[in-house]
Amino acid sequence: MPLNPIQVLVLHGPNLNLTGFREPDLYGKQDLAEIDQDIHQEAERLGLVVRTLQSNHEGVLIDTLHEHRSWAQAVIVNPGALGHYSYALRDALQALRLPIIEVHLTNTKAREEFRHTSVISEVCIGSIQGFGALGYLLALRAVTGTGVGEQ
Amino acid sequence: MPLNPIQVLVLHGPNLNLTGFREPDLYGKQDLAEIDQDIHQEAERLGLVVRTLQSNHEGVLIDTLHEHRSWAQAVIVNPGALGHYSYALRDALQALRLPIIEVHLTNTKAREEFRHTSVISEVCIGSIQGFGALGYLLALRAVTGTGVGEQ
Amino acid sequence: MPLNPIQVLVLHGPNLNLTGFREPDLYGKQDLAEIDQDIHQEAERLGLVVRTLQSNHEGVLIDTLHEHRSWAQAVIVNPGALGHYSYALRDALQALRLPIIEVHLTNTKAREEFRHTSVISEVCIGSIQGFGALGYLLALRAVTGTGVGEQ
Amino acid sequence: MPLNPIQVLVLHGPNLNLTGFREPDLYGKQDLAEIDQDIHQEAERLGLVVRTLQSNHEGVLIDTLHEHRSWAQAVIVNPGALGHYSYALRDALQALRLPIIEVHLTNTKAREEFRHTSVISEVCIGSIQGFGALGYLLALRAVTGTGVGEQ
Amino acid sequence: MPLNPIQVLVLHGPNLNLTGFREPDLYGKQDLAEIDQDIHQEAERLGLVVRTLQSNHEGVLIDTLHEHRSWAQAVIVNPGALGHYSYALRDALQALRLPIIEVHLTNTKAREEFRHTSVISEVCIGSIQGFGALGYLLALRAVTGTGVGEQ
Amino acid sequence: MPLNPIQVLVLHGPNLNLTGFREPDLYGKQDLAEIDQDIHQEAERLGLVVRTLQSNHEGVLIDTLHEHRSWAQAVIVNPGALGHYSYALRDALQALRLPIIEVHLTNTKAREEFRHTSVISEVCIGSIQGFGALGYLLALRAVTGTGVGEQ
Amino acid sequence: MPLNPIQVLVLHGPNLNLTGFREPDLYGKQDLAEIDQDIHQEAERLGLVVRTLQSNHEGVLIDTLHEHRSWAQAVIVNPGALGHYSYALRDALQALRLPIIEVHLTNTKAREEFRHTSVISEVCIGSIQGFGALGYLLALRAVTGTGVGEQ
Amino acid sequence: MPLNPIQVLVLHGPNLNLTGFREPDLYGKQDLAEIDQDIHQEAERLGLVVRTLQSNHEGVLIDTLHEHRSWAQAVIVNPGALGHYSYALRDALQALRLPIIEVHLTNTKAREEFRHTSVISEVCIGSIQGFGALGYLLALRAVTGTGVGEQ
Amino acid sequence: MPLNPIQVLVLHGPNLNLTGFREPDLYGKQDLAEIDQDIHQEAERLGLVVRTLQSNHEGVLIDTLHEHRSWAQAVIVNPGALGHYSYALRDALQALRLPIIEVHLTNTKAREEFRHTSVISEVCIGSIQGFGALGYLLALRAVTGTGVGEQ
Amino acid sequence: MPLNPIQVLVLHGPNLNLTGFREPDLYGKQDLAEIDQDIHQEAERLGLVVRTLQSNHEGVLIDTLHEHRSWAQAVIVNPGALGHYSYALRDALQALRLPIIEVHLTNTKAREEFRHTSVISEVCIGSIQGFGALGYLLALRAVTGTGVGEQ
Amino acid sequence: MPLNPIQVLVLHGPNLNLTGFREPDLYGKQDLAEIDQDIHQEAERLGLVVRTLQSNHEGVLIDTLHEHRSWAQAVIVNPGALGHYSYALRDALQALRLPIIEVHLTNTKAREEFRHTSVISEVCIGSIQGFGALGYLLALRAVTGTGVGEQ
Amino acid sequence: MPLNPIQVLVLHGPNLNLTGFREPDLYGKQDLAEIDQDIHQEAERLGLVVRTLQSNHEGVLIDTLHEHRSWAQAVIVNPGALGHYSYALRDALQALRLPIIEVHLTNTKAREEFRHTSVISEVCIGSIQGFGALGYLLALRAVTGTGVGEQ
Repeated sequence: MPLNPIQVLVLHGPNLNLTGFREPDLYGKQDLAEIDQDIHQEAERLGLVVRTLQSNHEGVLIDTLHEHRSWAQAVIVNPGALGHYSYALRDALQALRLPIIEVHLTNTKAREEFRHTSVISEVCIGSIQGFGALGYLLALRAVTGTGVGEQ
Repeated sequence: MPLNPIQVLVLHGPNLNLTGFREPDLYGKQDLAEIDQDIHQEAERLGLVVRTLQSNHEGVLIDTLHEHRSWAQAVIVNPGALGHYSYALRDALQALRLPIIEVHLTNTKAREEFRHTSVISEVCIGSIQGFGALGYLLALRAVTGTGVGEQ
Repeated sequence: MPLNPIQVLVLHGPNLNLTGFREPDLYGKQDLAEIDQDIHQEAERLGLVVRTLQSNHEGVLIDTLHEHRSWAQAVIVNPGALGHYSYALRDALQALRLPIIEVHLTNTKAREEFRHTSVISEVCIGSIQGFGALGYLLALRAVTGTGVGEQ
Repeated sequence: MPLNPIQVLVLHGPNLNLTGFREPDLYGKQDLAEIDQDIHQEAERLGLVVRTLQSNHEGVLIDTLHEHRSWAQAVIVNPGALGHYSYALRDALQALRLPIIEVHLTNTKAREEFRHTSVISEVCIGSIQGFGALGYLLALRAVTGTGVGEQ
Repeated sequence: MPLNPIQVLVLHGPNLNLTGFREPDLYGKQDLAEIDQDIHQEAERLGLVVRTLQSNHEGVLIDTLHEHRSWAQAVIVNPGALGHYSYALRDALQALRLPIIEVHLTNTKAREEFRHTSVISEVCIGSIQGFGALGYLLALRAVTGTGVGEQ
Repeated sequence: MPLNPIQVLVLHGPNLNLTGFREPDLYGKQDLAEIDQDIHQEAERLGLVVRTLQSNHEGVLIDTLHEHRSWAQAVIVNPGALGHYSYALRDALQALRLPIIEVHLTNTKAREEFRHTSVISEVCIGSIQGFGALGYLLALRAVTGTGVGEQ
Repeated sequence: MPLNPIQVLVLHGPNLNLTGFREPDLYGKQDLAEIDQDIHQEAERLGLVVRTLQSNHEGVLIDTLHEHRSWAQAVIVNPGALGHYSYALRDALQALRLPIIEVHLTNTKAREEFRHTSVISEVCIGSIQGFGALGYLLALRAVTGTGVGEQ
Repeated sequence: MPLNPIQVLVLHGPNLNLTGFREPDLYGKQDLAEIDQDIHQEAERLGLVVRTLQSNHEGVLIDTLHEHRSWAQAVIVNPGALGHYSYALRDALQALRLPIIEVHLTNTKAREEFRHTSVISEVCIGSIQGFGALGYLLALRAVTGTGVGEQ
Repeated sequence: MPLNPIQVLVLHGPNLNLTGFREPDLYGKQDLAEIDQDIHQEAERLGLVVRTLQSNHEGVLIDTLHEHRSWAQAVIVNPGALGHYSYALRDALQALRLPIIEVHLTNTKAREEFRHTSVISEVCIGSIQGFGALGYLLALRAVTGTGVGEQ
Repeated sequence: MPLNPIQVLVLHGPNLNLTGFREPDLYGKQDLAEIDQDIHQEAERLGLVVRTLQSNHEGVLIDTLHEHRSWAQAVIVNPGALGHYSYALRDALQALRLPIIEVHLTNTKAREEFRHTSVISEVCIGSIQGFGALGYLLALRAVTGTGVGEQ
Repeated sequence: MPLNPIQVLVLHGPNLNLTGFREPDLYGKQDLAEIDQDIHQEAERLGLVVRTLQSNHEGVLIDTLHEHRSWAQAVIVNPGALGHYSYALRDALQALRLPIIEVHLTNTKAREEFRHTSVISEVCIGSIQGFGALGYLLALRAVTGTGVGEQ
Repeated sequence: MPLNPIQVLVLHGPNLNLTGFREPDLYGKQDLAEIDQDIHQEAERLGLVVRTLQSNHEGVLIDTLHEHRSWAQAVIVNPGALGHYSYALRDALQALRLPIIEVHLTNTKAREEFRHTSVISEVCIGSIQGFGALGYLLALRAVTGTGVGEQ
């Protein structure tokens, strides 16, 4: 691994700890541990350093973002259902002044009306949704393509 | 008590710990401990096993639902004001794939406009509201009438 | 039966005469005669006197409410689809100045958008929905818990 | 009384038969029989002939309008709550091609939101509301001022 | 006439009894008796058996639909203005589980805003509007083209 | 004239000085001087004392209301188009704590959409509209029927 | 065929070239060539002359309408999805000053929300929808019933 | 300090721990510790006793409010982004039955649309926004001017 | 008084001349003269020079703002009900390019819906509402805290 | 100048007296006196007679329109912000029964949302906006092209 | 003609080829060829070079804009009905980074509701509407007044 | 390259031919030819066969989709601004019954309001936006992860 690999924080929001168990046809059959393992492998392949965290607590997600203000150079966030209403999470993301990528396992636009709204999209540089756990891996590659960590 | 009584999780959301103290004309004069006692008595009478929990933390309510995925056969939930916006709680309830009954102490439709919206109703089998603490007891009886735990 | 049992009027609105025949998976397999029989039995058990009526005519329902102004001490009403638009029925209910309980066989919140609106909820003390014909029996029990007929 | 007095149909919609009994502070203390008596007296004074009818049935109100198509030269209608949704009543009024005056006992604009909408106003020549039973008498005088029955 | 002709119920809603008298430039010059005669003639030509009914009473229309549940194999309905708000009529139509065709004499989309909404369209197989009384005859032909009564 | 006749302030809002000249088919052929004369005559007949004022200036109308706080016992106001947006006029009317009657020459509900909204209706006891200048005379009679000036 | 048969232009909008291949349960199993053949046969039977055209290009549809301004005496148009937003197509239809009939293979009111809006309905004399390819044949018959080409 | 100084709870919601670091041009250059110090100094000057708390957890804020039900005589709350959606926080504030003052560092009305909505304003006695940390000091003075703690 | 004290214009909008007389429980018991006196005293204490003006005329308020373009260094404005619709007042305020503070005697967010909208908030640096006349004094102190008049 | 030149009234609404001083990059650098001079010169060149007036008072603008009812043959009006809400100004313009042209210095559609609404557009023959003071000169030329004053 | 005259592209959208034939009372009696001739004459007089194009194809209009990216120094566009929905045309206009003027023959604000929306206005410097073909000539003059082609 | 590589159609909608020239800070500096070259290279690396097409014509895009119904096994589409309104394009995509991926160069959610709506999202399996031309390459990888072409 080269010097100074880009440091990426990956956050999973509420109920994502049930991935693999909850409606596997919709959310996929891998559990979150397996997904995180894939994320770390792909990160290593791309020369990135990743930390991952899942929480059902809005406050814990915000605290974690604050604690990684200096460490992280990019954030990948799957806000779960918090993405539909948590302006507090949005403010925490925006306060980082870092490139943020929004990931959803499913194509939220093809589901219930309330899932069409994301209050965090506006503070992200881009989004990837509908490809299951593969979305995180695409997001990692997107991080490498956005010039983060370059001089 | 017969073999294999139905196991029911009863959740009380934010501010319900103040019941009995907060606007007693509206919410009733019993405090939450007394209500829970009545719930346990009625459950026993109906041959149900109940666990109850109150929290002001959305994350704790979600964690508790996850932890009871195997134990519970039905859920009775008074979401408090979280019912008006917590899609994360909704997702947690829906992920259980169990019969869920929504209870409110007051008739929310006859109160402020924002209380008319419940984002969890759609994932419940039914709702009971406006009868104070009696609503929980009716909900327990409704559980016994929905065929849960039958072969 | 004790002296002065509470007198309860139970009204079934349009199309409820088809219950048992119409989409039995949704509305249940009992026909209305059987449901009314259960209502009378439960009422007797609870020490209540019940009169029941079904009509597809808004005007007949309103006339019936007016005619029972002195007799009834509580009303249980399943407005059927009239509940979505009949402000005339609402006014008739409100004019009674009695405790009114709204019952729906199905969980209207989990069905078509137009079923989410009830123009009569605001003049009721509470509502029970989603438990099929059991809802009427729970409503009877709720009547006994609301202090109607007490001194 | 002169030859050919103007013939006026006065219709009272749902729940107006309860006037005098229902919320007298809001709707007044006269009952409908007394109000109709005042209407007939004032009509006589103004040289008008009046027929009055009250019904809780939308269909009866429409039938009555149809039956008076040749007799009536003007209509005074208090639609009650039907005024908020009955496009069928509106069509029946419009089909008469007569001057129609809308009367409400109360000032609907100062009451609940749903009472602010009248679907029949557009087919009336004018409206009078907020003056209790006096409104009918003012409407009779308005009929004489609109040139009905003149050559 | 062949064995087992298809049986079709034709319902005319409120105010359609005035057809021919009410705004003939808009609704046509034939009265309802003449229209019904044409309907019967066309039905005979197409090998259908028809029953027709007009009512200004929502309840009568619903009762009639219920009474023809076994007899009718298809329904043609001109709901009149009830089509804009009568969810009770909608439920009655839907409960039949028969092919239903909505007919309007006029092109409702080119008239007042409130006529653009039909709450029954969703439970019909199709609609024909804007062709005056001819619309009923086209609807009869449409019935023959939908495979009703075929093995 | 009896002792202590009721004192009524009649206000005409913007553009009403053009009455008689502006679209006479819509607003009538009498000019404002003639209308005011009729108002004074009718007032005299009813034993009322009236002051009238017309202004195109919202501020002048408000000042006038303030200046008549002690003198007036009732107010009749035709707000003209100010009625659609002038919350300042509304506050001035409401601050009087007097019975206020809203009059419009035309039936605003049968005209452009923006005329359907009146921001002052809620602070009035009632309204009369669609009868041209006759509306003011009916309003005067309504004042006498509301018990103003009675002990 | 008589002298001067009525000349009818039939337009099929975007994606209708896939009829028969695209969701046959919804749109039917006939392909467009077969449908056009049926249209020509029915036209001949009714004494009409028909030209048909399908295009996925809004501009081609508009050009075609312009080119047939003198030739056509009536237009039958299935706008496909253009009907939901193409005000340019609407203007082209309206500019013809001819009777226009809107046809849809499916009952758009029973499908997705966006299909409930037709921006061309207002400039048509009527519409037929929900009867598959039979709708075109009914529309041809409707043309003969609208007095087009008569003196 | 006099006997019985007024006791004031000051709550800072999510992300306010970043004040001084997060967009200092917008939120000011003081960090939260310095702001709290100023609050305590000003309180002392005004004869108030203050407790302050910041949390990113909705549940912690609610718990804190509950725990200070007896201690606090007034509350100053900067809800952060929770103010846009947390009806649970609103209920907790309302349940206190104390004077509550809402403070925002920035003028939320001049920022993004979603910041224009505050779900807690309705249960506060007043609000101060747009003056940075000075807002808290003005709020303290406002507390002294509202008669809290007076006989 | 020091050299070059900050010059502040204080404007009171429509109906504020009634303060002290109009709903004193809501708006306070001080009349406007007393409030202005308090404003001048507080200004003197803070080293500010103040001019105050009340008008019920939108145009006078705008003229006054224009005339003080050079004199004023800050503006405190209580727009009264004009704040809900007067975009002309907004433009006049914005044109000054000065710090502007909006003051309301009452908490407008806890009153009628129409009072929730302020069209001038966006051009102000901040707002203070709900503290009665004390609000003006807090606003003066806010002026001193915003760096106006500093080098 | 020929006989009977067309007489045109040019009105400038609130805050336009600041033109040249207020945001010159947006509204231009000419002051209103210079603009009026250009208007008079262009009018002379085109053979028109012009009167111009600016006021910040809605009432003065309406009075001026009324006073020029006989004199003016066309009106050019820049309503300033009154155009967004002053239905009274709209009524005054409409009452003139003259060709009216709306002019705005800026392209209101590319500015704040509230500037997108003009309540007077509907009573004008056309509008010109976005070209600064040149817009008035184009409007004068448009007057000459509309056939005003021709026989 | 001077050196380097300003080069202006004039685009006419769908259905404008029918101008002169289509509703001449609304759109004028000149056909498009005559209008284009007037445009060229006026351009010559003003020292401009103009190219004009009409198309009913959104794609052709976009292609034409792209092809004139280097040639054109200003664009005058009458989008026809595409202006109500074609965000693709908007993007093409915006991509030019040139001054663009929107012209409409009619005053769209005084016509159907859907014509009140223009999705291209925001990317134009200004608009002229309601003056028929004269609008193009005014737009040419506006081009000369906007400083295009100046150093 | 292996046997039977997956065949992918890549469509670029209106104005994307300007990529590299149009607002390069927003859309990137590569022109479309370079982007297509990258797409082909990445496809080859992943064992895919790609065809690419750009058009400003909605009809051409639809025709192209139809023509590739048999050839394509997946579609990647950047609809440009057509994505905001072209239900015809949506229908064409849906008719393919293939996995479709929506790509946008920019994060549309952080741009103008109208760009937040995509009418095609619902018929896609997922979307990638905000990463410039890299988005196409991520989409290709997503195709390989969706099991297309597998047995």
